[in-house]
Amino acid sequence: MATIATNQRPYSDLPPANVTLFEAKARKGLSFDDIAKKVGKDEVWLAAAFYGQAKFSPEDLAKVGQALDIPEKELTAGLGDHWWPNRGLGPIPPTDPVIYRLYEGFLVYGHAIKAVIHEKFGDGIMSMIDCKVNIEKKPDPKGDRVVLTFDGKFLPYAKW
Amino acid sequence: MATIATNQRPYSDLPPANVTLFEAKARKGLSFDDIAKKVGKDEVWLAAAFYGQAKFSPEDLAKVGQALDIPEKELTAGLGDHWWPNRGLGPIPPTDPVIYRLYEGFLVYGHAIKAVIHEKFGDGIMSMIDCKVNIEKKPDPKGDRVVLTFDGKFLPYAKW
Amino acid sequence: MATIATNQRPYSDLPPANVTLFEAKARKGLSFDDIAKKVGKDEVWLAAAFYGQAKFSPEDLAKVGQALDIPEKELTAGLGDHWWPNRGLGPIPPTDPVIYRLYEGFLVYGHAIKAVIHEKFGDGIMSMIDCKVNIEKKPDPKGDRVVLTFDGKFLPYAKW
Amino acid sequence: MATIATNQRPYSDLPPANVTLFEAKARKGLSFDDIAKKVGKDEVWLAAAFYGQAKFSPEDLAKVGQALDIPEKELTAGLGDHWWPNRGLGPIPPTDPVIYRLYEGFLVYGHAIKAVIHEKFGDGIMSMIDCKVNIEKKPDPKGDRVVLTFDGKFLPYAKW
Amino acid sequence: MATIATNQRPYSDLPPANVTLFEAKARKGLSFDDIAKKVGKDEVWLAAAFYGQAKFSPEDLAKVGQALDIPEKELTAGLGDHWWPNRGLGPIPPTDPVIYRLYEGFLVYGHAIKAVIHEKFGDGIMSMIDCKVNIEKKPDPKGDRVVLTFDGKFLPYAKW
Amino acid sequence: MATIATNQRPYSDLPPANVTLFEAKARKGLSFDDIAKKVGKDEVWLAAAFYGQAKFSPEDLAKVGQALDIPEKELTAGLGDHWWPNRGLGPIPPTDPVIYRLYEGFLVYGHAIKAVIHEKFGDGIMSMIDCKVNIEKKPDPKGDRVVLTFDGKFLPYAKW
Amino acid sequence: MATIATNQRPYSDLPPANVTLFEAKARKGLSFDDIAKKVGKDEVWLAAAFYGQAKFSPEDLAKVGQALDIPEKELTAGLGDHWWPNRGLGPIPPTDPVIYRLYEGFLVYGHAIKAVIHEKFGDGIMSMIDCKVNIEKKPDPKGDRVVLTFDGKFLPYAKW
Amino acid sequence: MATIATNQRPYSDLPPANVTLFEAKARKGLSFDDIAKKVGKDEVWLAAAFYGQAKFSPEDLAKVGQALDIPEKELTAGLGDHWWPNRGLGPIPPTDPVIYRLYEGFLVYGHAIKAVIHEKFGDGIMSMIDCKVNIEKKPDPKGDRVVLTFDGKFLPYAKW
Amino acid sequence: MATIATNQRPYSDLPPANVTLFEAKARKGLSFDDIAKKVGKDEVWLAAAFYGQAKFSPEDLAKVGQALDIPEKELTAGLGDHWWPNRGLGPIPPTDPVIYRLYEGFLVYGHAIKAVIHEKFGDGIMSMIDCKVNIEKKPDPKGDRVVLTFDGKFLPYAKW
Amino acid sequence: MATIATNQRPYSDLPPANVTLFEAKARKGLSFDDIAKKVGKDEVWLAAAFYGQAKFSPEDLAKVGQALDIPEKELTAGLGDHWWPNRGLGPIPPTDPVIYRLYEGFLVYGHAIKAVIHEKFGDGIMSMIDCKVNIEKKPDPKGDRVVLTFDGKFLPYAKW
Repeated sequence: MATIATNQRPYSDLPPANVTLFEAKARKGLSFDDIAKKVGKDEVWLAAAFYGQAKFSPEDLAKVGQALDIPEKELTAGLGDHWWPNRGLGPIPPTDPVIYRLYEGFLVYGHAIKAVIHEKFGDGIMSMIDCKVNIEKKPDPKGDRVVLTFDGKFLPYAKW
Repeated sequence: MATIATNQRPYSDLPPANVTLFEAKARKGLSFDDIAKKVGKDEVWLAAAFYGQAKFSPEDLAKVGQALDIPEKELTAGLGDHWWPNRGLGPIPPTDPVIYRLYEGFLVYGHAIKAVIHEKFGDGIMSMIDCKVNIEKKPDPKGDRVVLTFDGKFLPYAKW
Repeated sequence: MATIATNQRPYSDLPPANVTLFEAKARKGLSFDDIAKKVGKDEVWLAAAFYGQAKFSPEDLAKVGQALDIPEKELTAGLGDHWWPNRGLGPIPPTDPVIYRLYEGFLVYGHAIKAVIHEKFGDGIMSMIDCKVNIEKKPDPKGDRVVLTFDGKFLPYAKW
Repeated sequence: MATIATNQRPYSDLPPANVTLFEAKARKGLSFDDIAKKVGKDEVWLAAAFYGQAKFSPEDLAKVGQALDIPEKELTAGLGDHWWPNRGLGPIPPTDPVIYRLYEGFLVYGHAIKAVIHEKFGDGIMSMIDCKVNIEKKPDPKGDRVVLTFDGKFLPYAKW
Repeated sequence: MATIATNQRPYSDLPPANVTLFEAKARKGLSFDDIAKKVGKDEVWLAAAFYGQAKFSPEDLAKVGQALDIPEKELTAGLGDHWWPNRGLGPIPPTDPVIYRLYEGFLVYGHAIKAVIHEKFGDGIMSMIDCKVNIEKKPDPKGDRVVLTFDGKFLPYAKW
Repeated sequence: MATIATNQRPYSDLPPANVTLFEAKARKGLSFDDIAKKVGKDEVWLAAAFYGQAKFSPEDLAKVGQALDIPEKELTAGLGDHWWPNRGLGPIPPTDPVIYRLYEGFLVYGHAIKAVIHEKFGDGIMSMIDCKVNIEKKPDPKGDRVVLTFDGKFLPYAKW
Repeated sequence: MATIATNQRPYSDLPPANVTLFEAKARKGLSFDDIAKKVGKDEVWLAAAFYGQAKFSPEDLAKVGQALDIPEKELTAGLGDHWWPNRGLGPIPPTDPVIYRLYEGFLVYGHAIKAVIHEKFGDGIMSMIDCKVNIEKKPDPKGDRVVLTFDGKFLPYAKW
Repeated sequence: MATIATNQRPYSDLPPANVTLFEAKARKGLSFDDIAKKVGKDEVWLAAAFYGQAKFSPEDLAKVGQALDIPEKELTAGLGDHWWPNRGLGPIPPTDPVIYRLYEGFLVYGHAIKAVIHEKFGDGIMSMIDCKVNIEKKPDPKGDRVVLTFDGKFLPYAKW
Repeated sequence: MATIATNQRPYSDLPPANVTLFEAKARKGLSFDDIAKKVGKDEVWLAAAFYGQAKFSPEDLAKVGQALDIPEKELTAGLGDHWWPNRGLGPIPPTDPVIYRLYEGFLVYGHAIKAVIHEKFGDGIMSMIDCKVNIEKKPDPKGDRVVLTFDGKFLPYAKW
Repeated sequence: MATIATNQRPYSDLPPANVTLFEAKARKGLSFDDIAKKVGKDEVWLAAAFYGQAKFSPEDLAKVGQALDIPEKELTAGLGDHWWPNRGLGPIPPTDPVIYRLYEGFLVYGHAIKAVIHEKFGDGIMSMIDCKVNIEKKPDPKGDRVVLTFDGKFLPYAKW
């Protein structure tokens, strides 16, 4: 019987319904990928929704509830139409090494990425709203590699 | 005749030799990709080196000098064996929208990325040291997309 | 039956009476605009009051109670004459992308706005106290637009 | 003969070419609106570009140079194709009362604005990239009012 | 029957006995000035003591208890000789507009006030310990005015 | 012959014309009150303007120039119609004890001041824009006292 | 019957056993000096231990328990061999004026103290670990004085 | 011939006249105590004045100039009646170990010191304005000790 | 019977299962080294795992449970396959002197360590992921010494 | 001919004499170890002194000057008896990955290190003043390892 450390970040910062999701996931021994396949979504998006960083539609909630044997009503009561993600999951700067390395990515490569985007696309940004995030495992004899991809729409700056 | 705003960040935080590189690049009207091809490197890595975030080898300096008509000695005097990158190019948190969106990426998707990495690889991190960063332009009728990829080695946590 | 994540920001930072308001709103399935019309106020002001950022008058409390089937006494006990808004609802800087974009607005356009206000009005400020905030949905074939308006009194700087 | 306090923020954080623009503007005694009309742009956008927060196209630079009697080459040398805005003009939090009031706007009304956007548009944000900012003076017998409008595209959150 | 939002700042940061004071004050419908008159103190000092920023003497506690129908023992148990104010009531910088304006006062006028104090008194400070704070309402046809006075002892800097 | 430490805060953060004012004031040995009387202003306002925190009108500049034997043109070149105060003079939190005590004033008495303002005026703020600041020396046998007064317009919060 | 505001800093940051100590001290009406004499320690050290900033030995716990009529076992259960002080008692920077003045001491006199230590002792520091802190009351007709002494071992910097 | 690193903190934050003092002191090879004796002051106060944290009277300047062979006029031009200390010498938190240990002193012993002051003196503070700071070298066979004393007037909190 | 101060950092930031571990350890009177030997790990790694900074394998959990007489199921429920360390244990900067000294280590010696690593290994870092940490007690007549060793893999920076 | 980027951190924060040292070192092509051997010191200590974090004795300066062909007088003028290290070399938190990893070391292993020190030595700290830092290269077929050792005296906490 798995328990979730609800006194501990990031769980302490999540709605109770999300903790219910994590408990059921642990009890069932399913991975995010297992659940994502049943819901028809990518594992990263699904994990983001578990962490309160994305919004399940009513259909998503029904499928997630089915996959995890949680009554749909229970999920809807907590995460239904009246709930909207309040995104951003601290601390800042991140202390966990996994998340810190992403942060270090923009510290070290941020200006280079910005410059290449401008040269390739002009004045504007890569959207983090219309953006899909993907993680692949790439086997490598020297040690497997994580391939993390952000696929975001380019948004040109308005001029008026 | 192009000038670089050396009183302004990030240029004010770079060694004078890097400003020389930026001036020559602007004068020649070359893109990072143009120069990268002559040096035999990727454009993101080359841009990072221009921003003082990566170290040119003596061979790199020779090729870059040739590509930009800068005497190799001038570059070596500033960026030779006695100089090591002092990485990290602020401000923190970033204020420029292009760089902020990367930062927002870990605020919103950081825990999801961490969880999926753990499920796929176990306890450890994606290295930002043994990591290659790539940017592709993906045409799309609804608006072109930026595909930003981090390809980093998975490093399992030591236990002893 | 809807529940509010009272362990989670911003709900954890609100008086219990405000959580009662949010629960009743969710249970009734009403929008801020629905309630605002019954109370005779604009939806943005009403939402601000729900988030503890504006003060209901006794008449407002009576109307809100009626609209949401909450006994007026219950609301008055929590939000009556003895309660005053302690305004400001963190975190700072904001992490939620919706709120961050407003913050980015003053990072990018703040000095331009300041300069144009000075040229049009002289030395002084746009009041955020005597200020009405409005949000309109503007249909657009390329994607609907949010029109956010601040209508604030100009206050000239005192000289003495 | 007007001078610009280049040791002082925000001027100290701008490229020298932008200081040239401010000096010429002061010498000519033109308002941002005067120049904007000659360039075919709105005054807020033009002011943003003067403060280094927007990018002039080559055509813009030609027109601005003409309006202010600055040789186009001088402007192009500083702000041509090799220069991209590094947006964000501190300090954070703002200390100037005009800019602080905008910041206070999101502190007080941020969650209300977010909630109404979600109710009207769903899960997503108001873009600050595809956004037009406008300032109007509204005469009022009790004191003129500043009407500040952000007209930004709604961007729905991607799900994948 | 009035309640105090003890989960909410500043009440969450106060000793329980102070919350008892606020509840009794609300139940009785008394202003700080009403209570202050019964205790023989100024309303600002009394309010400061309610907010845990000043220390009641045993006589003060007796009078306050009498004025609010709270058993003196109850107040003494919480705020008696064993309790000392731990002064300073956040957040910093303040987000509430009323308190922020005081903060803005020293941001804008701080150096001017310092300079005039030095010219009038020499090298030293205005004490905030031996200081009386007073608020008066000054009627004005253009809108009533708040007259806030700090009357503090000048302390010359020691030289030794 | 007096010099101003222009490498040192707050002088390093002021326009050069303001340093000229300070130098002339020191050379002439005049107090802020001496100059203020010649300009027809209060000494605190005048000092604020010297510190770049208020805007001189053209008439003010003429009078100040006359009082200090500085050619009006010189002052107008730096502080004329093209210059607007960028208010706020750090550091934050203040380290100088004189200015820190003002800051401590709102840390300790902020909530009390807020509560009394609400009881006397309702929901709203004391304006720091339409506000006059005054400093008087009050002789006292136990040590002279500084009487610092903020006389600011009450601004009621808008409801709409 | 005295109570301790365990929701309030610094008490909320202390182990429950320390709150027991404070309650017993208040109930008995003893000063730190009274207890210190029974334990054979200085009052400042004893107070530090009450605030969780120093470690009681088993003998100390026995004596403190005896002095305050607390069963030794109860104290040992909380503060025995398994507990070590996690020193540092916020907030930072301090807001309480008593503690802030110490902080101001190093802001104003820090470099002077450092310079004199170097001139008298050479390159090294005054230990805050092997350091005794003492407070004496020095009567003075102009007002009693606090004499606060830090007596710390000088530690020369290692060279190797 | 000694030089002062005027690009380096804390020297970069001092008026030029103070750098002149440090240069002369180094050239003459005098300690703060040597100079203090000639000026009739304590070495800590004198050092504070060298670091711009205290104000020399005209008589002090004359004596210091004599002690260091600096023309009095030169010192008066920089540090005369028109100059007032802008106290506080960063960084915060301090990074230098000597100064950090003082900071650690209030982190660890701050609440204990506060409690003992209250027990011995009542509600109030130890003044850091009317305070003398002294450093003595106490020989000790186990290693010499630094005895640092703050002798400050107790200021009782005003009640009104 | 030992208790753990679960309201106090760092315990308040740990999963309940870790508190169970600390309680059992205290009850049994075992050192980290005692337990580490039974589990076949080093004491520093084991302590890190107790503080939630490393992940026990199922085998580790079984051995730890056996060593401390805790049912394996209880540990697995809290720290099994569904739990991953969220590393980083504040506050930052550290206030406890033991931990602060490590922090001071990189403040003072960081650039020297970086420079020597570069000279010995080239451009890259010492991994803190593939790193073993060890503490030895080295007897010394002048006072025992702590020998703290980080043995981390060198990771060369990728170039691509 | 090598140049040092004196506009860039950490060089911009060092006394000019230290830049002279770096330039001579680069010109001579010597490693820290080469110079350290001639001076009779360890390379880490020597590098720390180059970075202004340790104090050269007059004998050290003579030997360093000889090793690098710099006149001893030039070094003594800048770094002689009148100069003391102002230790601590930012930024904080560190952005360079090499230095950040040390910082991460105390974030992740800080409490474990503290606990093991207490169990092995009792209540006290590892001195960072009486501490020797050493770096060794340990060949390893899977990749060479950095062995970083801190050898610091244990200092027991004073009780008094």
